[in-house]
Amino acid sequence: MRFDEAYSGNVFIGSHSNYMESKAVLYGMPMDWTVSYRPGSRFGPTRIREVSIGLEEYSPYLDRELEEIKYFDAGDIPLPFGNPQRSLDTIKEFVDKLLAADKFPLGMGGEHLVSWPVMKAVSEKYADLAIIHMDAHTDLREHYEGEPLSHSTPIRKIAELIGPKNVYSFGIRSGMKEEFEWAKQEGMHISKFEVLEPLKEILPKLAGRPVYVTIDIDVLDPAHAPGTGTVDAGGITSKELLASIHAIAGSKVNVVGADLVEVAPIYDVSEQTANTASKLIREMLLGFVK
Amino acid sequence: MRFDEAYSGNVFIGSHSNYMESKAVLYGMPMDWTVSYRPGSRFGPTRIREVSIGLEEYSPYLDRELEEIKYFDAGDIPLPFGNPQRSLDTIKEFVDKLLAADKFPLGMGGEHLVSWPVMKAVSEKYADLAIIHMDAHTDLREHYEGEPLSHSTPIRKIAELIGPKNVYSFGIRSGMKEEFEWAKQEGMHISKFEVLEPLKEILPKLAGRPVYVTIDIDVLDPAHAPGTGTVDAGGITSKELLASIHAIAGSKVNVVGADLVEVAPIYDVSEQTANTASKLIREMLLGFVK
Amino acid sequence: MRFDEAYSGNVFIGSHSNYMESKAVLYGMPMDWTVSYRPGSRFGPTRIREVSIGLEEYSPYLDRELEEIKYFDAGDIPLPFGNPQRSLDTIKEFVDKLLAADKFPLGMGGEHLVSWPVMKAVSEKYADLAIIHMDAHTDLREHYEGEPLSHSTPIRKIAELIGPKNVYSFGIRSGMKEEFEWAKQEGMHISKFEVLEPLKEILPKLAGRPVYVTIDIDVLDPAHAPGTGTVDAGGITSKELLASIHAIAGSKVNVVGADLVEVAPIYDVSEQTANTASKLIREMLLGFVK
Amino acid sequence: MRFDEAYSGNVFIGSHSNYMESKAVLYGMPMDWTVSYRPGSRFGPTRIREVSIGLEEYSPYLDRELEEIKYFDAGDIPLPFGNPQRSLDTIKEFVDKLLAADKFPLGMGGEHLVSWPVMKAVSEKYADLAIIHMDAHTDLREHYEGEPLSHSTPIRKIAELIGPKNVYSFGIRSGMKEEFEWAKQEGMHISKFEVLEPLKEILPKLAGRPVYVTIDIDVLDPAHAPGTGTVDAGGITSKELLASIHAIAGSKVNVVGADLVEVAPIYDVSEQTANTASKLIREMLLGFVK
Amino acid sequence: MRFDEAYSGNVFIGSHSNYMESKAVLYGMPMDWTVSYRPGSRFGPTRIREVSIGLEEYSPYLDRELEEIKYFDAGDIPLPFGNPQRSLDTIKEFVDKLLAADKFPLGMGGEHLVSWPVMKAVSEKYADLAIIHMDAHTDLREHYEGEPLSHSTPIRKIAELIGPKNVYSFGIRSGMKEEFEWAKQEGMHISKFEVLEPLKEILPKLAGRPVYVTIDIDVLDPAHAPGTGTVDAGGITSKELLASIHAIAGSKVNVVGADLVEVAPIYDVSEQTANTASKLIREMLLGFVK
Amino acid sequence: MRFDEAYSGNVFIGSHSNYMESKAVLYGMPMDWTVSYRPGSRFGPTRIREVSIGLEEYSPYLDRELEEIKYFDAGDIPLPFGNPQRSLDTIKEFVDKLLAADKFPLGMGGEHLVSWPVMKAVSEKYADLAIIHMDAHTDLREHYEGEPLSHSTPIRKIAELIGPKNVYSFGIRSGMKEEFEWAKQEGMHISKFEVLEPLKEILPKLAGRPVYVTIDIDVLDPAHAPGTGTVDAGGITSKELLASIHAIAGSKVNVVGADLVEVAPIYDVSEQTANTASKLIREMLLGFVK
Repeated sequence: MRFDEAYSGNVFIGSHSNYMESKAVLYGMPMDWTVSYRPGSRFGPTRIREVSIGLEEYSPYLDRELEEIKYFDAGDIPLPFGNPQRSLDTIKEFVDKLLAADKFPLGMGGEHLVSWPVMKAVSEKYADLAIIHMDAHTDLREHYEGEPLSHSTPIRKIAELIGPKNVYSFGIRSGMKEEFEWAKQEGMHISKFEVLEPLKEILPKLAGRPVYVTIDIDVLDPAHAPGTGTVDAGGITSKELLASIHAIAGSKVNVVGADLVEVAPIYDVSEQTANTASKLIREMLLGFVK
Repeated sequence: MRFDEAYSGNVFIGSHSNYMESKAVLYGMPMDWTVSYRPGSRFGPTRIREVSIGLEEYSPYLDRELEEIKYFDAGDIPLPFGNPQRSLDTIKEFVDKLLAADKFPLGMGGEHLVSWPVMKAVSEKYADLAIIHMDAHTDLREHYEGEPLSHSTPIRKIAELIGPKNVYSFGIRSGMKEEFEWAKQEGMHISKFEVLEPLKEILPKLAGRPVYVTIDIDVLDPAHAPGTGTVDAGGITSKELLASIHAIAGSKVNVVGADLVEVAPIYDVSEQTANTASKLIREMLLGFVK
Repeated sequence: MRFDEAYSGNVFIGSHSNYMESKAVLYGMPMDWTVSYRPGSRFGPTRIREVSIGLEEYSPYLDRELEEIKYFDAGDIPLPFGNPQRSLDTIKEFVDKLLAADKFPLGMGGEHLVSWPVMKAVSEKYADLAIIHMDAHTDLREHYEGEPLSHSTPIRKIAELIGPKNVYSFGIRSGMKEEFEWAKQEGMHISKFEVLEPLKEILPKLAGRPVYVTIDIDVLDPAHAPGTGTVDAGGITSKELLASIHAIAGSKVNVVGADLVEVAPIYDVSEQTANTASKLIREMLLGFVK
Repeated sequence: MRFDEAYSGNVFIGSHSNYMESKAVLYGMPMDWTVSYRPGSRFGPTRIREVSIGLEEYSPYLDRELEEIKYFDAGDIPLPFGNPQRSLDTIKEFVDKLLAADKFPLGMGGEHLVSWPVMKAVSEKYADLAIIHMDAHTDLREHYEGEPLSHSTPIRKIAELIGPKNVYSFGIRSGMKEEFEWAKQEGMHISKFEVLEPLKEILPKLAGRPVYVTIDIDVLDPAHAPGTGTVDAGGITSKELLASIHAIAGSKVNVVGADLVEVAPIYDVSEQTANTASKLIREMLLGFVK
Repeated sequence: MRFDEAYSGNVFIGSHSNYMESKAVLYGMPMDWTVSYRPGSRFGPTRIREVSIGLEEYSPYLDRELEEIKYFDAGDIPLPFGNPQRSLDTIKEFVDKLLAADKFPLGMGGEHLVSWPVMKAVSEKYADLAIIHMDAHTDLREHYEGEPLSHSTPIRKIAELIGPKNVYSFGIRSGMKEEFEWAKQEGMHISKFEVLEPLKEILPKLAGRPVYVTIDIDVLDPAHAPGTGTVDAGGITSKELLASIHAIAGSKVNVVGADLVEVAPIYDVSEQTANTASKLIREMLLGFVK
Repeated sequence: MRFDEAYSGNVFIGSHSNYMESKAVLYGMPMDWTVSYRPGSRFGPTRIREVSIGLEEYSPYLDRELEEIKYFDAGDIPLPFGNPQRSLDTIKEFVDKLLAADKFPLGMGGEHLVSWPVMKAVSEKYADLAIIHMDAHTDLREHYEGEPLSHSTPIRKIAELIGPKNVYSFGIRSGMKEEFEWAKQEGMHISKFEVLEPLKEILPKLAGRPVYVTIDIDVLDPAHAPGTGTVDAGGITSKELLASIHAIAGSKVNVVGADLVEVAPIYDVSEQTANTASKLIREMLLGFVK
């Protein structure tokens, strides 16, 4: 009977009730205040949890069930509206604690800038970190209309921190000319338009290395993810994105953290984007958390 | 820090974390399987909780804050999809326990049929119970196309149980001719079209009696509650409904339980219906729980 | 069993299956090609029929049931897309036949221009015809950007045909300065902003006369009818519009035909506008067809 | 002129007006009361008919026109809301009559459970029946939270009736581990994720046998069918589903009945799902009815 | 011919093409980064302009046409996403120039915080400034979760700058208890729930004084303005808001600037909120600019 | 400062402010009055411009930036609502002037009939013109229900004018049997269902010839373009359409004009269709204007 305890509410399906015993922690980063186009991704994590009740806990792709791994849903990190710097600091502090406790961090955005403090925290723990980045956009700007803390800058920031050669971007189909040129000059990997095939080529080179996987839902074609801030035609299908996650899961890289960002539910009355995101989260849990 | 406990998730704003210490219990009854027109109210309670974060905890109408009363959000009662009888039995059993523990039951529907087992349970505790019913529809059918368990029958059932003279309906603007005639013959009170003025006349007559308040959100005009199964033009405004709740709160009746039913979020992209419902729930808590 | 006859499909609730025996005929005029702002009212009649299944056949306002009158739902008149003149000719021909057979014509638009051929046909049958017109807009233009066949002109046309003094407009809150001035000069009645109170004053003056009632759904406030081409704030409530229909029904005027136009379903995901329109059609049938 | 007969209303485009002369019968099964996630498929058949006016009657895929086959649109079977058993009995009785009259049954759902009584009826007529099942979900549960009559059970029921070896599922990407294991143990065919290629392999093995084809619209990726109860990423395209229908049409199997289920219009403001469903219905008519 | 000049694009209907000759300037402040609930008001000004083509240029309320006043649509002020301080500075600088050139500033939000720098600028020009504030919310917080620059603080800021006794709030129905108490202690006027009647009492007291009018669209009931960030039931109608603007226009106060904020189009598929806002802007221009 | 000039408003991103200096001219043709199914494409051009702010000005496909070409956004051509003939004449006159000034015409619809006067104008300038037509529909009718000016006829008209052998249609998956037969008899090229592969075969045959490219957005699958009048399942992806535009851009044909038609924003709450259209317009500018 639920009378003996607090209602556990809107948690992701199959989550474990005990933080201490959990290997992985799922958390939301409900921030969207630096986006230049359509806001609303602050509500992404809540809606992804809500629709996860439509999911089975078993993956026929990976032949694995959620009960085989223990993960804790920590809810959304409370962030100060409209203050990017304090928000990023709060996220960093939260993830530092997870990493200190040897938890696998699995984040849900929020705008892509939230990945920056997480990647920074992970890079401080793992010396030889590589980033696998799936996105429609380069996100390699130094600043956006004068703001260095912008949803267009997180990949640039981590590239400058750990070295551009350690960042691998896939599916990119939008950016400024200068961003593509910067990447080329600095030796950063960018696979334009495609994800799965170039990923399969890169994965063996990363074997054994710690890898953080950051996925912007807009790497999907708008047909597959209309509920995001900046939809950009010519993307991949959800079938290809699932296969890409499974390719990483089946490779020899050591995934040490991951996130899925930019789900903005209001633009998708059918809620297909949130439903797809909840399936991707399940596959990331089952595929990445050993 | 949230690491020490399970994430408390999507609970109604200001709810208390301890069942034992609480005077009132808020719960969802996510059932919509007998509706004859548009389903979807099963998702009402979840969405009402979700949007309650947009509410203040203070009511300038009642000059009272949620922290002044202790109430526990018990979440949604798990109900067997497509089985009305088992669903109603489950609700009855749940509410029986609340009443045995002297908790004030505040339910969220779900279709209106969910009020039937609650009203039955309350009537078993309070001998002289009266019902205040606000609705666009009479809900006085004996059966609907042969089904006695239908969203069109709950008021008939409770009227037959406690006597039609103890049921007071307000705002009614839709029903079969036979339903209106039955009410008239049996001495049941029906105020057609209006709520606040006739309510003010009736309340003094009910002074001191235990009263259960059941509100179908469609008593509101469709302009004020588009997100419900059966919208029916010519209803009251949310301002009038708020004033009606405050009239009851300020009267000498002894409210012993209440519910708000038929919020169906999918028909309302703006979410105004769920937001309005969350405000009504707050006012019912602050006004009815002493 | 339905095997013996063609499926009667999507007809308005309670319609009679035999044209010959019917006193009234309900028909759709699915034309929207001259509108200057948002099109889509061609789908109004179909959706109004579809949602009519959510209605009761009894009106507690008029204490009358649909089975007490016999009316036939003739479906939508097939109209040539993009050709206003041929469309209007087709409507005229259709209504002429109805009137020759002494049927009460009850039309559903479509844009307001469809009322013009109907009013013309009715005026040819009834010498002393008056028009009761409820609308947000004057519709008194001579032409719109050079086009004499425009949704902005129908009231001007009928006023010129039967004399402006025989046209009574209510609820008007939008138009060109020249339109208001023309009406004033010509002695045409315009009640700005309000409907019910001025209507109650006018009705006794029209006692005994044949009257055609044309209602543009946008006489309602956008809150009550978001699903229309040109929403205009500051309108009346659906409660007031119902009361206005009932005022006409209870007066001594001789209603000889009526229509309800400009329902455009696509702008209203909740379908409240179509549902409200279906209730208004029911009340017009029960109130106007003796 | 339509005055001589009842308005034939909202029927599927190109349907024949005489039941006796028709080879095939199209009918709706508007039931959605056992679904565990999002209801609303009760309105699928009505909306599919409504949007069919946007279709051509000619298929450039099959080079055939609807007038070449005679089919009758029988409308929706009236079902008792909230009573699964009575609903299924009513469907069974209806289809039994069709089969007795040697009509080809083509059903539109409604939730997938409606296929169960139809498949049962068909299996009673055709001794060696095989089932071709396209779906995102296994639908092989014995019961759902205690309910044996659930939208998650129809394929299990028919498999148990005619033998699991006679059931062929395609496109499956969601289910419980136990369901997949049961199928494997029992020798039931399940093609995970893909439809067209495995179907082409299976069809020759079924040559000459009577086959019933049941398609859950959610076999399509959510991008292609957002308007359904349970969207599940990683599905096939509408192009692939069309090709799969054409593959069956061009094979040597003897299709003796078919259905398309789970279209829930409210989740798809663009109405693409209903439009796609109407095209699929046309291709099933032209491809399956000889 | 438009070939000789740049396309003038999406400007508010009836705007004048020459800044120098204009008495009033309309401008957008597309900022929404500090909102605590639903963002999206950054797109308000653009959508309000877009739908203004559905408006007539004549007001039958004020018997005045837009061509009688000259106003210039300056477009949206470019603001740095996610940086509240720089955004507010940019707005201040823009409005300072308008005021220096003796233009009447009419702003469109954006979140309510954008009114703060405008009111500050106006107060620096007019010594005896009073504020008329219509809103559902007090907006009197000192900070929101630690942030002094928040959409919940603008009225507090201006009250502290010009003195709480010079600020008059109307229609307030939401806020923290502390905010109401602060207002009471400081002698600031708050009319709870109502606007028109208390406004009529206050206006004579302000005769001759310079007044800035700031209207949050959420002073309207959600039925009349679903497209806003924080909908709150129990508000006024658009008819009452129009009458309130007309009451100010007809009074002896000297309106020296105004704004309308918090229109968030994405929450309103019907676009009624943007259409209503465009009508309010027209009435503010015609009523306030002499 | 924008005070010195009129606000340039809602223009397509990167457009040049001077008509005389521009090589290409972008213009809208906001007509939708002859469509037989769902209207609304009149608002396509405005919405495409509005969402173009979400685009980068650089194409990683073509490695080219918008600033490398000069194009002028001329806005929408004002067209008389409901009068097809006058509308087409107005378009013809407009494009004649563009061509006389040697501008590259790039049009945005509106319904497909708007392409007819443009193609006619272009054919009068270029003797050996060929048409590349991408569409779901043949558009080869002589008339539609008696109307020769219909959205179903433009390709028939141009084929009759310049000879069917000079018209190449791709992606066609809907039409009347007679239309396909007419094309076959007359030697007109139709590639059913596919675009990219057959286009690659045809392009070399057209080397050196002047070519006009007309794209109906419904050549895309409904998943990729839900916001159009007539959605038709089984279409191509946006990735394939982008590749097709790039194939033409990289070929030896001489593109002398182009258009993109039938974007109807209201059917697509997510605005993915308008966003995709804005990207297609960018690629057409960068690929076709040398």
